[in-house]
Amino acid sequence: MDEPAFALRDATVAIVGLGLMGGSLVLALRSRNACCRIIAITSNAATRVQVIARNIADEASADLTRASSADMIILAAPVRTIIAQLPRVGAIARVGAIVLDLGSTKREIVQVMEALPAHIQPIGGHPMCGKEKAGFGAADADLYRNAVFALTPLARTSAQTLALAKSLAETIGARPLVLDPARHDRIAAAISHLPYTLATALMLTADEFAGDDDLTFALAASGFRDTSRLAASDTTMMLDILLTNRENVAGLMRACSRRLDDLADLIAGGDETTLRARLERAAAKRRELLK
Amino acid sequence: MDEPAFALRDATVAIVGLGLMGGSLVLALRSRNACCRIIAITSNAATRVQVIARNIADEASADLTRASSADMIILAAPVRTIIAQLPRVGAIARVGAIVLDLGSTKREIVQVMEALPAHIQPIGGHPMCGKEKAGFGAADADLYRNAVFALTPLARTSAQTLALAKSLAETIGARPLVLDPARHDRIAAAISHLPYTLATALMLTADEFAGDDDLTFALAASGFRDTSRLAASDTTMMLDILLTNRENVAGLMRACSRRLDDLADLIAGGDETTLRARLERAAAKRRELLK
Repeated sequence: MDEPAFALRDATVAIVGLGLMGGSLVLALRSRNACCRIIAITSNAATRVQVIARNIADEASADLTRASSADMIILAAPVRTIIAQLPRVGAIARVGAIVLDLGSTKREIVQVMEALPAHIQPIGGHPMCGKEKAGFGAADADLYRNAVFALTPLARTSAQTLALAKSLAETIGARPLVLDPARHDRIAAAISHLPYTLATALMLTADEFAGDDDLTFALAASGFRDTSRLAASDTTMMLDILLTNRENVAGLMRACSRRLDDLADLIAGGDETTLRARLERAAAKRRELLK
Repeated sequence: MDEPAFALRDATVAIVGLGLMGGSLVLALRSRNACCRIIAITSNAATRVQVIARNIADEASADLTRASSADMIILAAPVRTIIAQLPRVGAIARVGAIVLDLGSTKREIVQVMEALPAHIQPIGGHPMCGKEKAGFGAADADLYRNAVFALTPLARTSAQTLALAKSLAETIGARPLVLDPARHDRIAAAISHLPYTLATALMLTADEFAGDDDLTFALAASGFRDTSRLAASDTTMMLDILLTNRENVAGLMRACSRRLDDLADLIAGGDETTLRARLERAAAKRRELLK
């Protein structure tokens, strides 16, 4: 593998957006002394005060142009905000700067990255971790530990840039995995966006039911809690994800809805043999995942 | 409230079925010295050896008739096994014995309890807790701690019997909640059986998708893990639950499937305003639950 143009430990890193993902990244980099200088860029004044008071960043600003001195600019906002920021970042980034994003869908972002000036090195990224809580208050230096960190390089992304992005992922305890943006979005629809929509549909269905029986949620236990957990995810973030991955998500939701109807038919009709085969297949597959 | 005919601490308790629920109950009662004598009845020879070797029960037998000396007989098998056991229990239980079950649906069980001889005191029960692991190996003395313990008395259930069942629930750290069996089954469909079927449909959909892309599960993180967790539940137990609560479960599954299709239409059509309202409503309701 080619050597990066600069080492992470010598780099000035600007992180744009200090919510759960960006905030956790700043904490992870700082606690490991992973880079030379951190510029935190966020419109949240309270977060700016905090990162300076706690010495988590060297500089905090609401102004995106402050990223112009950075060797690496990391965009950690919801997907459509990243898409809006990219041309502005392209206008101010220094020659040779790496622009990495942490957005949860990759195709549309990487498409906009293609249009960045030639002197910038863009690469898409998506750490496969999260929480149902948003904001800097939920940030955690260990959020990335053992998570897969998907990287989606462009044709123009140099081997050095890819190596540096991998090194960043490994430094914060994550496992880099390189794949193309379209494949990322298809897989993410199946293992992340579909589960979110199911949790949401469950919550809406149970809540409608609860309107007729006020004991409903008093009986809810860990099974309901876990299955519905993702419904509490940040709505703005999820809306951006769903609307930048429409066909994949809607297609899988409809496939899942047909499976649910099929299971309902088997239950209503009392077709025990077929029903048992379906349930056993799902149970075996789920147990396999934990191995 | 009337005083029970006997105190739990003076009672001989027979527990029939030593899987996750029955096993956890034996451990919970024993660790608290909650009753005078415990008879463990299970067809699993290895479990019988273990409960005697570890002094968790005073007697272990594969023979249901050994429950004839018990003041309280607790049936902790899957629902349809309980239904099959009840007439046999009715034939051997001593005069005044309390028969409590821990089955996950209550209507069909309570209906069979109605036919028990008049000298027996039946009451339905359902502790709202569990794990996706089955068997005595997964049993845990703290499983019931803070769980709601639904109790569904019959018209013939005496106040003393209800008081003793409540005292049992409280002794193992649970919170008794009295409601009628039909209402229990409707609510359980919404907050327990529907989530299980959604986890199952998710697992089957994701697994079919993974057949075309072997990276799929490598990218799955905590969101997928939590939403699919219930799919690994014990299949025999779940089959009994679904088939003794058909109309409620199938009805809610179809309602949820329509919600999922509705959300898919909004996503595919890019109707952001309506979609945001739905997602925000679900998120607000889910966050409310944690308060």
